[in-house]
Amino acid sequence: MKAAVLHQVKAPLAIEDVPEPSPRPGEVLIELRAAALNRRDYWITQGLYPGIKVPCILGSDGAGTVVEVGSDISTRLIGQEVVINPGLEWGPSEGAQSTRFRILGMPDDGTFAEYVVVPLSNVYPKPPHLSWHEAAALPLAALTAYRAAFTQGELTAADRVLVTGIGGGVATFVLQYSVAVRAEVLVTSSAQEKIEKAIELGARSGYNYTDPQWDEAVLEASGEVNLAVDGAGGKGFEKILKLLAPGGRVVTYGVTAGAKVEIPLNRLFWRQLRIIGSTMGSPRDFERMLDFVTRHLIRPAIDSVFPLDRINDGLERMRRGEHFGKIVIEIPH
Amino acid sequence: MKAAVLHQVKAPLAIEDVPEPSPRPGEVLIELRAAALNRRDYWITQGLYPGIKVPCILGSDGAGTVVEVGSDISTRLIGQEVVINPGLEWGPSEGAQSTRFRILGMPDDGTFAEYVVVPLSNVYPKPPHLSWHEAAALPLAALTAYRAAFTQGELTAADRVLVTGIGGGVATFVLQYSVAVRAEVLVTSSAQEKIEKAIELGARSGYNYTDPQWDEAVLEASGEVNLAVDGAGGKGFEKILKLLAPGGRVVTYGVTAGAKVEIPLNRLFWRQLRIIGSTMGSPRDFERMLDFVTRHLIRPAIDSVFPLDRINDGLERMRRGEHFGKIVIEIPH
Repeated sequence: MKAAVLHQVKAPLAIEDVPEPSPRPGEVLIELRAAALNRRDYWITQGLYPGIKVPCILGSDGAGTVVEVGSDISTRLIGQEVVINPGLEWGPSEGAQSTRFRILGMPDDGTFAEYVVVPLSNVYPKPPHLSWHEAAALPLAALTAYRAAFTQGELTAADRVLVTGIGGGVATFVLQYSVAVRAEVLVTSSAQEKIEKAIELGARSGYNYTDPQWDEAVLEASGEVNLAVDGAGGKGFEKILKLLAPGGRVVTYGVTAGAKVEIPLNRLFWRQLRIIGSTMGSPRDFERMLDFVTRHLIRPAIDSVFPLDRINDGLERMRRGEHFGKIVIEIPH
Repeated sequence: MKAAVLHQVKAPLAIEDVPEPSPRPGEVLIELRAAALNRRDYWITQGLYPGIKVPCILGSDGAGTVVEVGSDISTRLIGQEVVINPGLEWGPSEGAQSTRFRILGMPDDGTFAEYVVVPLSNVYPKPPHLSWHEAAALPLAALTAYRAAFTQGELTAADRVLVTGIGGGVATFVLQYSVAVRAEVLVTSSAQEKIEKAIELGARSGYNYTDPQWDEAVLEASGEVNLAVDGAGGKGFEKILKLLAPGGRVVTYGVTAGAKVEIPLNRLFWRQLRIIGSTMGSPRDFERMLDFVTRHLIRPAIDSVFPLDRINDGLERMRRGEHFGKIVIEIPH
């Protein structure tokens, strides 16, 4: 089968023929129709991810059709259209993943290929309102956003929500979820064009975070926020803490702008604030995410579509950071 | 009546005769039997508290008997033995106090006096198993500890709990609550004697935080903790984050060792950790605290008792930091 293989970091993925995998007991073979990029894939290609193993087929997001099943699984599943939960071996606790937890696509071979083998427990029926491109754009980002916003952030209609770095996959889903529950949403971006797209998706207003006074502008125009969902960290994180209303919470799921931040604990306790870490999500989170997306007919924002043999162009687009929503990889058969 | 009055900061409280207050509608007059010191009182005497107003009778903790009621209140309440909730005008949200929130004892006249006037809604029947000294030792610290441990920290029997700075009022209540629900408790202190007292109260083990490797010692001897309750902040707070198990949470209620701390957000999100600010508690928290203390027959740890006219000696004892549990002020009549 054709696959995009990482042979060494800081080099393009190799589009090459590799043996088609076979499902063992408990596993299914998926003929992929589409995949999607995540920042994680980009970090891995740059060598900026722990435990890199080569050669490996990258890719966490995918949707396709079950074409073969392990010996203990009913063949009636063959032909089922599915999306893949990329979280492997989350473990028994809803509070955090186990030490065995892995994300599909390094070290396990992932979805940038014509076929992928995953555990049966990781496949879910494709939401019927979504195209293959849209279904493939869901898994990692929509799951991370669901856990961050709902499971950890306890988002409700009563919240004014701040979503930083709009345009990123997780951020854009958080925006869509917040709009779906009728919360008021503010966004930040460095690009006016992205702010305008966010407003089209239902954001109340947007702020350019390259303005050193963007936090003051939020306070003046909109007021304090109850929930912030942030994937950047860095200096902006300290501003977010100034924007939180009493009892407010900020969920952190990434640190693209820097991991170390200085926190004034006295502000935290006097205003009863919470800083909540969140990453990926449990199988229960994934199920609830699919249910939410289906009930609210949410369609992922798709930035662009590249065929599998042009995946390196997709990664380059991600590197430039100009995308809004997901970069989808089409897998022709 | 006799009262301990703050006339200027960085000077002893003046023990002097002042007019006895009268209850207005909605208020009751309490003849106090005992009061207790909180670190807040000490900070105020040192000028290290916002919005200091003089002259003022300090004191947040008190227990006594209702002796007079406002014109709209049934006189049947007269003679009722009560403890006082020192939180005034918390407001409607359980998530955080309102902007009108105040703590009894500056700017409102407090409990370091023979009598105090408070709203009827701030008095609760004295738990029957407690002496006057013990009842007066409860309010501010037991309330703060209840909200920190349960409402915010979601303490259960399944937790291994770390309580830093044992001997402090709040810390000692958190220890007692944790023991009451049969959680495993570790404590820290700079004094071996306090660690031994904590073990008598049910702590599993104790660590001296002046040892720069105390966090390593915890990991080796006890393992990671699920919940930490911390009133110190500073460098020790960064160590606490290293001790939290995946899904763990740390509740911060004070910063005696420093307010600014550096947080590695990547550790927070990857391990699904939470930093939760907590201060004081709502009327609901106060009610639940009294119920919990009564059901579990918890008796506050009392360090020492000073008569009202020796209150400055009590404050000096608090300054030295050698106390374990509450410093009680006896109010003779």
